[in-house]
Amino acid sequence: MSYNTFGRLFRFTTWGESHGPALGATVDGVPPLLEITEAEIQVYLDKRKPGQSKYTTQRREPDAVKILSGVFEGKTTGTPVQLMIENTDQRSKDYGEIAQSFRPGHADFTYMEKYGIRDYRGGGRSSARETAARVAAGALARKVLGDGITVRASMVQMGSHKIDRSRFDWAEVDNNPFFCADPVTAEAWATELDAIRKAGSSIGAIIEVVAEGVPAGWGAPVYGKLDADLATALMSINAAKGVEIGAGMEAACLTGEENADEMIPGRDGQPEFQSNNAGGILGGISTGQPIVARFAVKPTSSILTPRKSVNIKGEAVDVVTKGRHDPCVGIRAVPIAEAMMAIVLADHMMLHRAQCG
Amino acid sequence: MSYNTFGRLFRFTTWGESHGPALGATVDGVPPLLEITEAEIQVYLDKRKPGQSKYTTQRREPDAVKILSGVFEGKTTGTPVQLMIENTDQRSKDYGEIAQSFRPGHADFTYMEKYGIRDYRGGGRSSARETAARVAAGALARKVLGDGITVRASMVQMGSHKIDRSRFDWAEVDNNPFFCADPVTAEAWATELDAIRKAGSSIGAIIEVVAEGVPAGWGAPVYGKLDADLATALMSINAAKGVEIGAGMEAACLTGEENADEMIPGRDGQPEFQSNNAGGILGGISTGQPIVARFAVKPTSSILTPRKSVNIKGEAVDVVTKGRHDPCVGIRAVPIAEAMMAIVLADHMMLHRAQCG
Amino acid sequence: MSYNTFGRLFRFTTWGESHGPALGATVDGVPPLLEITEAEIQVYLDKRKPGQSKYTTQRREPDAVKILSGVFEGKTTGTPVQLMIENTDQRSKDYGEIAQSFRPGHADFTYMEKYGIRDYRGGGRSSARETAARVAAGALARKVLGDGITVRASMVQMGSHKIDRSRFDWAEVDNNPFFCADPVTAEAWATELDAIRKAGSSIGAIIEVVAEGVPAGWGAPVYGKLDADLATALMSINAAKGVEIGAGMEAACLTGEENADEMIPGRDGQPEFQSNNAGGILGGISTGQPIVARFAVKPTSSILTPRKSVNIKGEAVDVVTKGRHDPCVGIRAVPIAEAMMAIVLADHMMLHRAQCG
Amino acid sequence: MSYNTFGRLFRFTTWGESHGPALGATVDGVPPLLEITEAEIQVYLDKRKPGQSKYTTQRREPDAVKILSGVFEGKTTGTPVQLMIENTDQRSKDYGEIAQSFRPGHADFTYMEKYGIRDYRGGGRSSARETAARVAAGALARKVLGDGITVRASMVQMGSHKIDRSRFDWAEVDNNPFFCADPVTAEAWATELDAIRKAGSSIGAIIEVVAEGVPAGWGAPVYGKLDADLATALMSINAAKGVEIGAGMEAACLTGEENADEMIPGRDGQPEFQSNNAGGILGGISTGQPIVARFAVKPTSSILTPRKSVNIKGEAVDVVTKGRHDPCVGIRAVPIAEAMMAIVLADHMMLHRAQCG
Repeated sequence: MSYNTFGRLFRFTTWGESHGPALGATVDGVPPLLEITEAEIQVYLDKRKPGQSKYTTQRREPDAVKILSGVFEGKTTGTPVQLMIENTDQRSKDYGEIAQSFRPGHADFTYMEKYGIRDYRGGGRSSARETAARVAAGALARKVLGDGITVRASMVQMGSHKIDRSRFDWAEVDNNPFFCADPVTAEAWATELDAIRKAGSSIGAIIEVVAEGVPAGWGAPVYGKLDADLATALMSINAAKGVEIGAGMEAACLTGEENADEMIPGRDGQPEFQSNNAGGILGGISTGQPIVARFAVKPTSSILTPRKSVNIKGEAVDVVTKGRHDPCVGIRAVPIAEAMMAIVLADHMMLHRAQCG
Repeated sequence: MSYNTFGRLFRFTTWGESHGPALGATVDGVPPLLEITEAEIQVYLDKRKPGQSKYTTQRREPDAVKILSGVFEGKTTGTPVQLMIENTDQRSKDYGEIAQSFRPGHADFTYMEKYGIRDYRGGGRSSARETAARVAAGALARKVLGDGITVRASMVQMGSHKIDRSRFDWAEVDNNPFFCADPVTAEAWATELDAIRKAGSSIGAIIEVVAEGVPAGWGAPVYGKLDADLATALMSINAAKGVEIGAGMEAACLTGEENADEMIPGRDGQPEFQSNNAGGILGGISTGQPIVARFAVKPTSSILTPRKSVNIKGEAVDVVTKGRHDPCVGIRAVPIAEAMMAIVLADHMMLHRAQCG
Repeated sequence: MSYNTFGRLFRFTTWGESHGPALGATVDGVPPLLEITEAEIQVYLDKRKPGQSKYTTQRREPDAVKILSGVFEGKTTGTPVQLMIENTDQRSKDYGEIAQSFRPGHADFTYMEKYGIRDYRGGGRSSARETAARVAAGALARKVLGDGITVRASMVQMGSHKIDRSRFDWAEVDNNPFFCADPVTAEAWATELDAIRKAGSSIGAIIEVVAEGVPAGWGAPVYGKLDADLATALMSINAAKGVEIGAGMEAACLTGEENADEMIPGRDGQPEFQSNNAGGILGGISTGQPIVARFAVKPTSSILTPRKSVNIKGEAVDVVTKGRHDPCVGIRAVPIAEAMMAIVLADHMMLHRAQCG
Repeated sequence: MSYNTFGRLFRFTTWGESHGPALGATVDGVPPLLEITEAEIQVYLDKRKPGQSKYTTQRREPDAVKILSGVFEGKTTGTPVQLMIENTDQRSKDYGEIAQSFRPGHADFTYMEKYGIRDYRGGGRSSARETAARVAAGALARKVLGDGITVRASMVQMGSHKIDRSRFDWAEVDNNPFFCADPVTAEAWATELDAIRKAGSSIGAIIEVVAEGVPAGWGAPVYGKLDADLATALMSINAAKGVEIGAGMEAACLTGEENADEMIPGRDGQPEFQSNNAGGILGGISTGQPIVARFAVKPTSSILTPRKSVNIKGEAVDVVTKGRHDPCVGIRAVPIAEAMMAIVLADHMMLHRAQCG
């Protein structure tokens, strides 16, 4: 796992900037003979694509993926799969202001401190466009996992407003612009986000991602823990500030009696768990229960309200970020979260097969 | 980063089970000419050592570290440093019950599912004893960082009871058995944990770890993000269920205006931040502000109250875990968290030096 | 170092098949602020390019490299550099025969055994076209090394015919189609290879690659040895069957007295070596002398003489490989060898800086 | 693969210096449920052990291995296996001379240049004692491979004196002190090495290592090639200067017709190869034929004849290395070569299973 590479055996490297000619993912270690088409990958990219509703950035990109290698006559060959997405909406504009100043809460400042140079156009490498490459790689990961494993995500909180768990229905996720499993809350969010958007402001969110069908035994002890890998996978998503597995931060409030997921004899010799505070992972290894993770994303730092900052000369400036931005980046984080979960699981499926046959 | 290895350049591998003859860490990539003694490492091990107060397990181990390699005439040589800790209190007892049944909320079940075998004595590899090796490696990491960087942690919540931030004082951390920066809350916790311990129960906690003196520019974009590495580092600690950077999960509730850490011109040409919601990291790279992380640990699953479970034949059993256990594993997680933070930072210091000179 | 990735810190991943739309290298870990243009990279690609003389395959490809990311306003930004080369001469032809049979001495058979599928068009991933991506990455590695380090290679043996070391002159390398530092031998080879080419046969070769200006101290003990890394780098080149450092296989014949490279006091406090049997590397670490490596490549397996083989049904067939092939792949291995040497050195420069400051 | 770690999935890290308290290998990724005892590992260590004949160093070490972790009730558990060997014959002596001067042809100089410090006692980390840890790890690798795969090595050349291939008999290897498959040559070597030893000199050698029973399909394309991994594995052995696969450096002399290993239909649908110039590897992937590798080791640099060198002050000195040294390090390289071959194969067996099921 180096700077721009994720995974051990199912392993991908992303490249490309927001306003360069293209971006992509080189996916290495893909098992051979998986049937895959550009159209199948495109389905997931279309979910992430900007401009789908008034709640996401109005940048209009087809985000059309091309498979440049590793697939022959419709099947993976075991060699690296290059997934490329050309940037088409590189709106020419004056970057003078953004080139000279650091947006508060943005990577502008730290990239400059680290490298002494940055591609300031649209955020360059720190732009959320990088995540298109992840979503494309995630489609391949799903192929590795096969039909028996389902990976789904829902936005479960926007600002302080949480969903009502009693209304949770996966079937609702694609029926509203928030990828929200609770349609009633989704409607309320629509009103709230309209106001935020019109005010030129932004808001944070929490996304929950769940994998069902994962057998017991995937993962590894100590530093290759399934939960530790999920933590880095989700924290690597732009704007993420917190990651939870199962009970998450609330685990602090539980007693040993409350926390213990009791087991009773179940079908096929497998135990039946009575609860899932563990989020499907114990000692870094899957239990056979659904894998449940959540992560919080901060509000986008690109807002219309002026914020105090400094420019590259170190002088005081007020920064206002015009342009096309997501008022709630949590929405488009939903397909990204699914992709990262699928990628971590595909990697661990292969790791488990390697060691335990 | 493989099963039992952590880090890229400052890189350590731990080995050893709870009730085997010894455990240790092989630390590779250590810069040469650092002065280090066993006594300096021992200081940190003594903080983590069990039996320090009535609030931690009464297993009595000296946890004496031996340097077996990589140090010559008091200085590191650049070759791997082997840090070994012999297990001395391997109390002989009948493991029959624990060998046959799976403790709910424990790795017993998943290790067996994965490997078809487990060293059931004291939890084997999934025992918190593994963390002694991390603490030893962390002492070396501090040497790499040097005196200009301070890494400190405090327990900030036990159960639902949080500290009062207005009383936060690092100097108090070593004055109470909870490594708590708020002495008043520490006293209240003492009463609460006494009751929990006597009831044979256990409770979760939240630990905050802070690094000061880290310059701007450490970290890397996308998959080698400093925050993503901290997430995996802290989530890899036994019992961890959630990790936060800066505002953490609460970032979901913030607006863009609230979240933006404004900057004004400061000393030495560096900006002065007006807040630290970012926790010292933007775009995966340090800002120069304190690095702030928190993580939640669940209550230990080893409790006296009977819990429903199954045995290795799949039959229903009631499990009661006798023996010497921590009523709040969060306490001893404090020095472990410091070690993991120091290790991540040492690795990133070296990574940064490699790429940016 | 995974399937299609090479290097630790200066780290590149190649992708693409011989007859797919494109191939390339994703180069990660590149230091920022290096000035680089497509034209500078193209110089090295042009050396490797087929069709330069009658002694290399007549496939005509411009091998024009495009920088798709990681370079902004003429300088590297520290983010991954994508170097893409489009395949333009994908001559449409009937692959029926090659698709059904395994060429002896070729990867056809083993790819099929491993993956159960192969892109048989032009060798797919096992084609030497993959090395174009290495050469492109090598140009970046040279930038990392800077002007003080020179990496040059020469073909030193074709068949059994070795060069005359007394005539060795680096300046001659670009004056003949063999990249040979001995112009007299190059002329003799021309006659010999003409005959081989006309007979539809092929011949092996040995290439020597030398780096000058490398300071003492690069490399690492035991498993990150500079010579062990060069060994894997050169053996990974298509058709390579042997690798030597310094005295190489002949070291077996030496006595301790002969082998010892004596030292006398030299300038600047550095010792002056009296010989270089070590090839500039002792204990895996550079001595400050020139780094000298050699490797042998087998003759291409694509020849006009019928060879016994089997087809994919396991039936006996005679295989004749028509088409455009190099009678001596050693020629085009010269720029590839330089690239791999430069890449290994750039990686070790960064590794050394990381650990030893 | 970092400084002191080898392998991807079957992955070991060695630690320890020649004259420290102990050395060892931490072996990670070992499949569970393999039966292993210290006695089984000891068999291989005893082959490598010094003092077995007058042709190896007279240092007397039992080299007794202890399993400190990862094995429970005689079986591997899937957790890291720590194999420790205590150093017992750390003869106290005056290291003054060796501490102040650099032995020509030895790592003394380069370690000092790199690290600014070195453990000069017995060569420290660059001592061949490190290879004891490899041999121990190799015993575990053989368990992973199972009984169907045989890994054997023979010394095939000492100085310029090669074995007679017509007398090659694996059964002879353990009947002479040279691990030589040709007993007649072994006798001649005995006379020759006696003279070299008495003269205080030393001599180089070539070792051949062969694996039989490896199925077709192990290995990986491009940078994870089986031959490239063998190259780094063998070149990482102390004193190695050259590595060959199959025809090796002689491949340069072959024509395409000679080199092509023809195939005819064989049993079980697998082709029968008519020759093995490829050394059992094509395109980086095993063919099903025996894997054949060779490597040359230089003569030990520790000789009685004075050699010109410099001391740590940069002054001219004459160096004579007294003490207990191997006149031909090639002898003890035989079990090390077997270990490294077994380790590479175990790793690739697991990699293949991971990707291709």
